[in-house]
Amino acid sequence: MRESGREVNQLRNIDIITNFTKHAEGSVLITVGDTKVICNASVEDRVPPFMRGSGKGWITAEYAMLPRATETRNIRESSKGKVSGRTMEIQRLIGRSLRAVVDLDAIGERTIWIDCDVIQADGGTRTASITGAFVAMVLALGKLVEKDVLKELPIKDYLAAISVGVLPDGTEILDLEYVEDSIAHVDMNVVMTGKGEFVELQGTGEEATFTRNQLMTMLDLADKGLNEIFKIQEDAIQSYKDMLDIS
Amino acid sequence: MRESGREVNQLRNIDIITNFTKHAEGSVLITVGDTKVICNASVEDRVPPFMRGSGKGWITAEYAMLPRATETRNIRESSKGKVSGRTMEIQRLIGRSLRAVVDLDAIGERTIWIDCDVIQADGGTRTASITGAFVAMVLALGKLVEKDVLKELPIKDYLAAISVGVLPDGTEILDLEYVEDSIAHVDMNVVMTGKGEFVELQGTGEEATFTRNQLMTMLDLADKGLNEIFKIQEDAIQSYKDMLDIS
Amino acid sequence: MRESGREVNQLRNIDIITNFTKHAEGSVLITVGDTKVICNASVEDRVPPFMRGSGKGWITAEYAMLPRATETRNIRESSKGKVSGRTMEIQRLIGRSLRAVVDLDAIGERTIWIDCDVIQADGGTRTASITGAFVAMVLALGKLVEKDVLKELPIKDYLAAISVGVLPDGTEILDLEYVEDSIAHVDMNVVMTGKGEFVELQGTGEEATFTRNQLMTMLDLADKGLNEIFKIQEDAIQSYKDMLDIS
Amino acid sequence: MRESGREVNQLRNIDIITNFTKHAEGSVLITVGDTKVICNASVEDRVPPFMRGSGKGWITAEYAMLPRATETRNIRESSKGKVSGRTMEIQRLIGRSLRAVVDLDAIGERTIWIDCDVIQADGGTRTASITGAFVAMVLALGKLVEKDVLKELPIKDYLAAISVGVLPDGTEILDLEYVEDSIAHVDMNVVMTGKGEFVELQGTGEEATFTRNQLMTMLDLADKGLNEIFKIQEDAIQSYKDMLDIS
Amino acid sequence: MRESGREVNQLRNIDIITNFTKHAEGSVLITVGDTKVICNASVEDRVPPFMRGSGKGWITAEYAMLPRATETRNIRESSKGKVSGRTMEIQRLIGRSLRAVVDLDAIGERTIWIDCDVIQADGGTRTASITGAFVAMVLALGKLVEKDVLKELPIKDYLAAISVGVLPDGTEILDLEYVEDSIAHVDMNVVMTGKGEFVELQGTGEEATFTRNQLMTMLDLADKGLNEIFKIQEDAIQSYKDMLDIS
Amino acid sequence: MRESGREVNQLRNIDIITNFTKHAEGSVLITVGDTKVICNASVEDRVPPFMRGSGKGWITAEYAMLPRATETRNIRESSKGKVSGRTMEIQRLIGRSLRAVVDLDAIGERTIWIDCDVIQADGGTRTASITGAFVAMVLALGKLVEKDVLKELPIKDYLAAISVGVLPDGTEILDLEYVEDSIAHVDMNVVMTGKGEFVELQGTGEEATFTRNQLMTMLDLADKGLNEIFKIQEDAIQSYKDMLDIS
Repeated sequence: MRESGREVNQLRNIDIITNFTKHAEGSVLITVGDTKVICNASVEDRVPPFMRGSGKGWITAEYAMLPRATETRNIRESSKGKVSGRTMEIQRLIGRSLRAVVDLDAIGERTIWIDCDVIQADGGTRTASITGAFVAMVLALGKLVEKDVLKELPIKDYLAAISVGVLPDGTEILDLEYVEDSIAHVDMNVVMTGKGEFVELQGTGEEATFTRNQLMTMLDLADKGLNEIFKIQEDAIQSYKDMLDIS
Repeated sequence: MRESGREVNQLRNIDIITNFTKHAEGSVLITVGDTKVICNASVEDRVPPFMRGSGKGWITAEYAMLPRATETRNIRESSKGKVSGRTMEIQRLIGRSLRAVVDLDAIGERTIWIDCDVIQADGGTRTASITGAFVAMVLALGKLVEKDVLKELPIKDYLAAISVGVLPDGTEILDLEYVEDSIAHVDMNVVMTGKGEFVELQGTGEEATFTRNQLMTMLDLADKGLNEIFKIQEDAIQSYKDMLDIS
Repeated sequence: MRESGREVNQLRNIDIITNFTKHAEGSVLITVGDTKVICNASVEDRVPPFMRGSGKGWITAEYAMLPRATETRNIRESSKGKVSGRTMEIQRLIGRSLRAVVDLDAIGERTIWIDCDVIQADGGTRTASITGAFVAMVLALGKLVEKDVLKELPIKDYLAAISVGVLPDGTEILDLEYVEDSIAHVDMNVVMTGKGEFVELQGTGEEATFTRNQLMTMLDLADKGLNEIFKIQEDAIQSYKDMLDIS
Repeated sequence: MRESGREVNQLRNIDIITNFTKHAEGSVLITVGDTKVICNASVEDRVPPFMRGSGKGWITAEYAMLPRATETRNIRESSKGKVSGRTMEIQRLIGRSLRAVVDLDAIGERTIWIDCDVIQADGGTRTASITGAFVAMVLALGKLVEKDVLKELPIKDYLAAISVGVLPDGTEILDLEYVEDSIAHVDMNVVMTGKGEFVELQGTGEEATFTRNQLMTMLDLADKGLNEIFKIQEDAIQSYKDMLDIS
Repeated sequence: MRESGREVNQLRNIDIITNFTKHAEGSVLITVGDTKVICNASVEDRVPPFMRGSGKGWITAEYAMLPRATETRNIRESSKGKVSGRTMEIQRLIGRSLRAVVDLDAIGERTIWIDCDVIQADGGTRTASITGAFVAMVLALGKLVEKDVLKELPIKDYLAAISVGVLPDGTEILDLEYVEDSIAHVDMNVVMTGKGEFVELQGTGEEATFTRNQLMTMLDLADKGLNEIFKIQEDAIQSYKDMLDIS
Repeated sequence: MRESGREVNQLRNIDIITNFTKHAEGSVLITVGDTKVICNASVEDRVPPFMRGSGKGWITAEYAMLPRATETRNIRESSKGKVSGRTMEIQRLIGRSLRAVVDLDAIGERTIWIDCDVIQADGGTRTASITGAFVAMVLALGKLVEKDVLKELPIKDYLAAISVGVLPDGTEILDLEYVEDSIAHVDMNVVMTGKGEFVELQGTGEEATFTRNQLMTMLDLADKGLNEIFKIQEDAIQSYKDMLDIS
């Protein structure tokens, strides 16, 4: 039994509010337990220098935490004048994950900027960011379809992420909250498509190691959790659901 | 008549949600029309080097906008690696304003960090930040009283801010939203205490000038608006209102 | 009576030496008591990216202190690798102030760079900078008229600045020197045109507040001081005085 | 058949030269095909601030490429003034991996600095870095044992890393060189201990996805390759091999 | 004959104004032709970390140009956020030169900060800086003697610098002004003591080379010029001249 | 007699390995005693902005040390986020030196990037860098001749560098290793062409001075050493030696 009373294979409550802010083409507030992330998707009509003339689009992500999203206040990265390694790792992960399910040729020379700003953190901010960012991105691209800029939604499949891990006593668990994350021996983030294929798999032993059996159990947990999350995403993108015809 | 239908001396709807995030000692979401700012107050048990040994406390503020708080996306200041002049100006203003109504000796060698993060912008973000930050700070200091760390709330008076300005046709108006702000010839921010004394007065002609008469009219407008705002603040700090005995 | 023997409404000695350095189009050494600032105006034949194609000109300012302009040595901002918030605030103020009295359309796509370098500081460096910068700018633009690049001096009015404040005993005073500035409860910078209209008004209570009556008294003091300064500026720009026909 | 003539499960030639430079406590040049990395381990008699007083040691890594380690010259990160996200990701990975097999309590308040400098790159620089860094670290810690600073080698197991991936035609391969890496649909780095347990698993679909079956095949390939590498490491640490009694 | 009418072995007019600014312990304005540099010496009662506990003092220098010291405006190094290689080279040269004639043990754990700020440049700013800095340093150390902080002036000899060079026609000249410097094939800076010994010698062929004979001629020119400069320095430090008993 | 047993006018063993890395157009590992530097020359088909349209080429150098090239580990400059003054001085020196012997007009609008990376340091890293960089540059330009991009090798003469110095006992010595460099009173770097003309001469008294006689002795030592080095370079560039017809 987990401290929160959750089963080992039980997700926290997940809620996705769409159109959370008014300016962004796609805007979402995703809540996973006590973790809350604003995911905004912005469309820019050009691509970074290394892609100009390719005819292809690009998706890139930025991630940040409000200084007091956490138990103790963190120094603001703009004040420090540089972005931490952890932040860079996360924003590269979010961007790479989203690009895996989008037809970049179909969006033309446009950049989709994804901004994930954590306003409250309780573990799993990077996976919540990916899950929310997918919805924000669908909303932004859906608008381009409505405006006849794109013919159809250039999205190949659903995409979501969740964490799994191994507690000190060896129990494998799904969706770690902060107190669990801080003691876990193994922490793994799984990014998966609606069809159940992997996009990213990042497993880390924290001064510890894990066996292939433990890996298998964790992947089963992730699979179960992500299938529940895909349903929540499906509800959130409601009006664009039919465009997202994946078969 | 203003585009929004407001009278020249009419505030936008103002709403203050308290305890907006769970970790900060004081947390507020302030909404002024379409401007929304999260104001978090954090208490740290030490002061910056230049104040050590003084026995006095310190209050400092940081301000930022989410990249997509605005009509078009702004580059994140952490990515740029430096904070803009505008941001610095605003955070210095917020900190100075709050320090004017706090008894710094009474809070001892502690720092109150104020984080104002604009999640949606439609003009007046710096004044909304000050107004919201005051409430967040009262909540944080109130908790110190409840925990018997402080004997009484070390706050000398209410504090709020509002903008006033002069439209191209010469009309003085209260509480400029973005479309007004971008065309106004004069833009003035007034920071005032509950007793009606000034803490800060920053009036700027935008490639234009203003007369002393216009100044007087703007100050009258600000006075009217701020008195309405003090009531909203009073409601927001409800449980600590009695501690804030200003007479 | 003030420590220096000055009356409350008495300026320090002000002196403006023109053509102080040889390369700048306009160069001035302004002395206000013991405050000395070199103000150089440079003309560049292009504007910043955000103004290209507008047909309008731009005026921008930079401000710095020599490390030993002050009682104790300050770390050089180039060594620190970043400009302080105070510096940014001041250079934005100088630029904005000058733009208010210049016909930017008339100067065409040119940038006037104003460099204010404080070589000795004794309070009032930002107001001395504005007063001196105005003269340097007139000299630089005057040369463009002499070279037939511009038809006439694109300046709408004189511009100068002065500080006023309130001492701890409640006395309002004009033109604060450092010892007064460091104890004053209120510090206000007034930027005014020759016609007596405000361009900028920045009043700040230093852990203190001020009333509307005090504001009025301070504005009267500023008005008196600035009218004396306009005469000194008029003498300094001697050869261009007739071009600056303001009526 | 691969372009290089290698079998799908065949490693490139791997060579580890020890004592490559004279100053470092542990110094290794590791060659994996055309990839060459200098791995230096330095011992410092203190730990970073966040660990002081813990009695525990720390291991941290830095990674860089010579500008012309690659086909076209890269801008030096010291000239750019900041470290890229890719570099940060890699150095965090190396440090985390090594910490998993070291008894940090046993090394006391010391930091082992690992510097991995790629002098020639042909794919797999991060895995070669980990494999070489392990040997450099053993050499450095071995010296501490010889000097009686440590009683025994505080290392729990061998540690090495290798890449596996999936080519566009679906073939899973071991140890990708650059031409393979640049076209692969899936790229996975596996960090494993001598006992065959995972320390890190980072699998990434490059605008592609992978199934659980493909994951299993890749893990089998990695397992085979890493067991060959452990033998090469065992030879390299020759004199300390007996100290590294893992049973 | 040189464009300026000077002989090949003729210095420009050199003038040293002492006590140029009021706060610095030693302050000098040195004028060499049209080159003008403010040299301020500040005394700080501690040394940099690498010298703490050594009982010795330290001398360090910073050098900067006002943006418009030159024909066209340079970007301010504080705005660029970094100091150029040229600036670093010069400030290291100034510091090293001064340290050669000071008894660092005698000044105790104090740092003498030398700030050389070029307000107008016409060639030879680094040599003028050294020559002026020596005087400023003597004034600052002299004050410490007057205050009985030091027993005697801890200076071993006079120190000055001058440039020599070779024009495209092969003529060796003394004290290059900007128009000469920009065409010279060889540029050499000579830093010498009153006794005629070298402290620094930096000769550079600008896409050209020089022979040993040319070197000898240039050293003779430098020797002549520097002996004239020592006399000017002697006059400048008047009241401390007797302290500087060099025999 | 020197600690190493060398004569005062004896070089350390010098070895130049060509084609050390595979990607660079010219690649050299130079060994001078225990000092080892990788010198890579890269050809880029464009010049920096300030030279565009000039038809001329450019040569620029970057220099770095591996963190553990030295006795104690240095902080990596990319981690510090800025390049030290020492590094800048050295890379400017290398670039300037090489440009003196190259016909920049003949190479057309191309940049030759020279990267000198010190992998092991024992004194004389800057002079070894110049000597090695010359060979790497010849190899790179030689390839352009072989590919018929250039008609002939645009090199005017051999170029090499060596250090000379004065020990505390007054002995002048050639080619200082680290233990000598750290105690020497005078340290001079001499950059010379095959014809025996100077390109750079940088002599520095370390809290000491030197006479003209000492200078002469040091130049004689340098001359002797450099003539030996030119022979080693000649061997290293073997296949291009005939192209480098200097008469």
